[in-house]
Amino acid sequence: MRIGVLTGGGDCPGLNAVIRAVVRKGVTAYGHEFVGFRDGWKGPLEGLTKPLGIAEVRGILPRGGTILGSSRTNPFKIEGGVEKIKANLAEQGVDALVAIGGEDTLGVATKLHDLGVNVVGVPKTIDNDLNGTDYTFGFDTAVNIAMEAIDRLHTTAESHHRTLVVEVMGRHAGWIALHAGLAGGANVILLPERQFDVEQVATYVTKRFQVEYAPIVVVAEGAQPLDGQMVLHNQELDSFGHVRLGGIGQWLAEQLEEKTGKEARTVVLGHIQRGGTPTAFDRVLSTRFGLQAIDAVHEGDFGKMVALKGTDVVRIPLIEGTGELKTVPIERYEEAEVFFGN
Amino acid sequence: MRIGVLTGGGDCPGLNAVIRAVVRKGVTAYGHEFVGFRDGWKGPLEGLTKPLGIAEVRGILPRGGTILGSSRTNPFKIEGGVEKIKANLAEQGVDALVAIGGEDTLGVATKLHDLGVNVVGVPKTIDNDLNGTDYTFGFDTAVNIAMEAIDRLHTTAESHHRTLVVEVMGRHAGWIALHAGLAGGANVILLPERQFDVEQVATYVTKRFQVEYAPIVVVAEGAQPLDGQMVLHNQELDSFGHVRLGGIGQWLAEQLEEKTGKEARTVVLGHIQRGGTPTAFDRVLSTRFGLQAIDAVHEGDFGKMVALKGTDVVRIPLIEGTGELKTVPIERYEEAEVFFGN
Amino acid sequence: MRIGVLTGGGDCPGLNAVIRAVVRKGVTAYGHEFVGFRDGWKGPLEGLTKPLGIAEVRGILPRGGTILGSSRTNPFKIEGGVEKIKANLAEQGVDALVAIGGEDTLGVATKLHDLGVNVVGVPKTIDNDLNGTDYTFGFDTAVNIAMEAIDRLHTTAESHHRTLVVEVMGRHAGWIALHAGLAGGANVILLPERQFDVEQVATYVTKRFQVEYAPIVVVAEGAQPLDGQMVLHNQELDSFGHVRLGGIGQWLAEQLEEKTGKEARTVVLGHIQRGGTPTAFDRVLSTRFGLQAIDAVHEGDFGKMVALKGTDVVRIPLIEGTGELKTVPIERYEEAEVFFGN
Amino acid sequence: MRIGVLTGGGDCPGLNAVIRAVVRKGVTAYGHEFVGFRDGWKGPLEGLTKPLGIAEVRGILPRGGTILGSSRTNPFKIEGGVEKIKANLAEQGVDALVAIGGEDTLGVATKLHDLGVNVVGVPKTIDNDLNGTDYTFGFDTAVNIAMEAIDRLHTTAESHHRTLVVEVMGRHAGWIALHAGLAGGANVILLPERQFDVEQVATYVTKRFQVEYAPIVVVAEGAQPLDGQMVLHNQELDSFGHVRLGGIGQWLAEQLEEKTGKEARTVVLGHIQRGGTPTAFDRVLSTRFGLQAIDAVHEGDFGKMVALKGTDVVRIPLIEGTGELKTVPIERYEEAEVFFGN
Repeated sequence: MRIGVLTGGGDCPGLNAVIRAVVRKGVTAYGHEFVGFRDGWKGPLEGLTKPLGIAEVRGILPRGGTILGSSRTNPFKIEGGVEKIKANLAEQGVDALVAIGGEDTLGVATKLHDLGVNVVGVPKTIDNDLNGTDYTFGFDTAVNIAMEAIDRLHTTAESHHRTLVVEVMGRHAGWIALHAGLAGGANVILLPERQFDVEQVATYVTKRFQVEYAPIVVVAEGAQPLDGQMVLHNQELDSFGHVRLGGIGQWLAEQLEEKTGKEARTVVLGHIQRGGTPTAFDRVLSTRFGLQAIDAVHEGDFGKMVALKGTDVVRIPLIEGTGELKTVPIERYEEAEVFFGN
Repeated sequence: MRIGVLTGGGDCPGLNAVIRAVVRKGVTAYGHEFVGFRDGWKGPLEGLTKPLGIAEVRGILPRGGTILGSSRTNPFKIEGGVEKIKANLAEQGVDALVAIGGEDTLGVATKLHDLGVNVVGVPKTIDNDLNGTDYTFGFDTAVNIAMEAIDRLHTTAESHHRTLVVEVMGRHAGWIALHAGLAGGANVILLPERQFDVEQVATYVTKRFQVEYAPIVVVAEGAQPLDGQMVLHNQELDSFGHVRLGGIGQWLAEQLEEKTGKEARTVVLGHIQRGGTPTAFDRVLSTRFGLQAIDAVHEGDFGKMVALKGTDVVRIPLIEGTGELKTVPIERYEEAEVFFGN
Repeated sequence: MRIGVLTGGGDCPGLNAVIRAVVRKGVTAYGHEFVGFRDGWKGPLEGLTKPLGIAEVRGILPRGGTILGSSRTNPFKIEGGVEKIKANLAEQGVDALVAIGGEDTLGVATKLHDLGVNVVGVPKTIDNDLNGTDYTFGFDTAVNIAMEAIDRLHTTAESHHRTLVVEVMGRHAGWIALHAGLAGGANVILLPERQFDVEQVATYVTKRFQVEYAPIVVVAEGAQPLDGQMVLHNQELDSFGHVRLGGIGQWLAEQLEEKTGKEARTVVLGHIQRGGTPTAFDRVLSTRFGLQAIDAVHEGDFGKMVALKGTDVVRIPLIEGTGELKTVPIERYEEAEVFFGN
Repeated sequence: MRIGVLTGGGDCPGLNAVIRAVVRKGVTAYGHEFVGFRDGWKGPLEGLTKPLGIAEVRGILPRGGTILGSSRTNPFKIEGGVEKIKANLAEQGVDALVAIGGEDTLGVATKLHDLGVNVVGVPKTIDNDLNGTDYTFGFDTAVNIAMEAIDRLHTTAESHHRTLVVEVMGRHAGWIALHAGLAGGANVILLPERQFDVEQVATYVTKRFQVEYAPIVVVAEGAQPLDGQMVLHNQELDSFGHVRLGGIGQWLAEQLEEKTGKEARTVVLGHIQRGGTPTAFDRVLSTRFGLQAIDAVHEGDFGKMVALKGTDVVRIPLIEGTGELKTVPIERYEEAEVFFGN
């Protein structure tokens, strides 16, 4: 068989480990050939390829990012996109595709499979918000990076009697905030899944100062205050109507400073959460995902994605993984609340 | 309620996080009081206690080790041990115990529960070999430490065209070797669960040198060669009949040097695998274990231990967790074998 | 002797290591007593003290921040400040002070010494911009944190064919940018010491994309473009006339995106550069600074600060260390330029 | 010019950073050409080369080891070695050599320069024991790795009330032990420069247990007890007369266990101290060494080696760097002694 591999969406530690496992097992155990498509679905759409064999995957296990490049190109939004993909796959002699990506990338994979393309999906989202799998790779790395930052910030907060607001990734799901906040001993954790009361947050912060320790507030970038609490003046909106001055973290720090009378500072972790070498958890998970994906391709079990269930890596229908966002359930949030304000 | 807490067996990153979660939730949510027992079962046996409240658990989340100390004392091997424990618990006014430990510590907990002591167990083993739970805390930290060491050793191996044998923890179960080896891109992984053929290992090593890369061999301390391969001269045994010169790692390096004609060196990671600050995974897991344990105590649900099943922390009968060792199943080992020798 | 210790200014990894060394040697070698003053000069000003002995300094060597707290209080800006300090020192029976801090803190120390207070200074600035010492502690830690962030960002930049602008600390001196940029393999490094031509930076960035690698631009927070290049609309200034929308990093990313036609993103490292456990270099340097400072106090050699010269820790007059800012000399910048744009 | 580059002796973090800086500046600033010689002096001796240009040095800055390979081959110990080297250099059209290595490698460089070969040396020793330079690269990385190990071991030592003996590199000079011991808060530090009294060490250890903390003893592999304290039975020597059972660390742990009545364990850090990605200090130092070395070559300033003096990278005669070992001066050791036993 000749098999194409592509990676789509935001980069994520573990992508290279998946590619390596797919190719290593595909070549050595099954004798398949591979071709890399560059930059997500843009690769098969425009016929952009890259050699992909044992030599190309040497040494990439510990490396972040993706040797294939990535993009957010969606062939279904391009005139004749599907036909071009089919033509390019045919020209390259590609019998099957391994598509590694998040909801968008796997959504395309699902539709292409319905249209007769042989696809196996590997779920990827640093936010851990894909249904059908217990965890996605990259998440553990992001949580560790955020936790290490929080560890560092504790000493600064306490030396200066300041509140430190740490804004982490998570537009729609608060997994990174929840886990990094628990692991880092945050005083409050705020998630997109639940609007927060800025007065309550200020109360927690004040309580923490009373025991002579300074608070760390972890806030997901998509968290929102209760309706009406964020009153914007005109000049705080940009021409698209977005809040101008930084994100929710900065807004919250300003509010807390005002309400508690204690200095507050914001740190926005941003892109450092998604780059660099994966943790052991993510390397093992992405390697096992890759091995299971190439097994599925080899067996002709298409239209599936690989998934973690407990300690097992299994296959589930592609459609199951991409239908709905996996958000933080209320009981997991309440479990954490016992630490708030103490 | 007045609740005693103890930690037994080898230390493990995450012990302090469990203690903190138990106390924080016990005090703030339920209003319980706590007393720390020192040095495992030795504490209740000899009446060695330590104050344990909100103040004592501040700042211990990221710290390795255990603020309560540990030991391997077994009260059932001591004349009148159980009676002494019961007397000391009564004297301290202790209504229930949270026992954090491995097979031995929880084995004692199980028997004491049968004898009427109110106990809830929290499983702890860095080796990840306790039944009934998907993972134990400390394991992820150990695997990451071993992986980082392997990452470092790759460059040395290649610069000097040497084989590097890395001996990791695991007397009876090879989980650390398997995960660290997968995560570190080991050339061969050797586990206690399966005797290895030193000739086969030498073949893998030789094959690796042929592609111009130097091999890393990861070996669990309890791994053994095929019967008859380790022929010992008298002077290689100490007075107890144990192998003198280092462990299996050193023996293997000598064998590989002889059989492949390439220099080989050994690194024994030893105690650095079990100390220091826990990873995010271990901090979250141990915190959730602690929260579930105090809930069980509060509800009077004794004779249980907490356990991870998928993404849920649940309770199972103590007896289920400690009966049998959880070793690496053959299919997990075969999954990894595709990387050997390449 | 009874000796007061205080830490002033921004926190910095190594402060606790200095305190520990001062107290450990002062007590065990010389038999002195200590009292901690809280929150910089605010402590002696308001008589805020803290016990400080062997017990208090146990275990603080690896901890970031300062157990004494810090502030930017300047007693010379407060009516009767100096008299209050003298009165409080007398009341506490303090014979001498060890003042650990940057230009402001040591400036106060210098003036107090002229007014008859027995002071020895320990230089502290994460920016490494104090004259009279080769390095200050905290700087090496900050550079390593920034370098690790840059390491992570390389893979993201390349996977997405994006420019990544990393804004690091350094308002007036670009030492962190220079060292982190060199260590992280930055494509361009921009310092406060030298205005940059945004067109030239865009040329470097474009050149880098041509060799199929994505650029990392490291910019000190105090770096400025050539006069006239940053044309500000009114609404981009806040009420103090400062640029509103983020710092120089965000401005630069927007400019580069426009000029190069490639996506650009900014990461502002902020407070994570100054918190957390010190590197070995900083632990050794701050320990040696502390030992030399207590020797100076013991010998009555006041009005001095400790300093690193080559591999020696020596004493210099306080006035020499605080007179002028140590900026990056042009030849060090030119040394780095060979890497720009390649 | 056509310039050869080689790396000799034990590998060391920063070697690749030197190679990269030499080639990057040599090509882009001066237009020189390069050829890599493989495996130290073995390369020019046997004519083993490797292409070396901008493409080959991309991405190697953060990588440990050496892309050129290394060996301990000494051409002066080989019949006709010098003539072979001269012939191979002529055949390759090589005008000058950059030799990166320790005492042995630079010793050969010195002699070859006397025989008319154009050589510039770059000093390399992880042990920091080369004269003529304040620091060598790789040392800071090794010290940080050892310090992190010690940080981890503290918690284990205290949880189990055990002594932990950490054996670090340093056969003839104790720089790594001294700096890692100071940075890690060791209870005792033992160096090759000064024989130790095992009774005194036991006293320190005992004292530490009395304050309820467990001791870490850091011992350089080349440290030795006072004459007569290590009484060996015949069977403890191997056929070369070397001590068989592990190194000095294990011997010391056994002695301390016996003399103090407290369990003692040994960790031998071994090869993990020399592999992996360099710290920022080492990346900056090795980059600056490389830049200065290529400048020297370009200017025809042969027979020199580069060196760090304070914050400057300078050139000194090769002979000055390699004559004598730079050991730890007694006053640096005494500076550290204040922490022993406390």
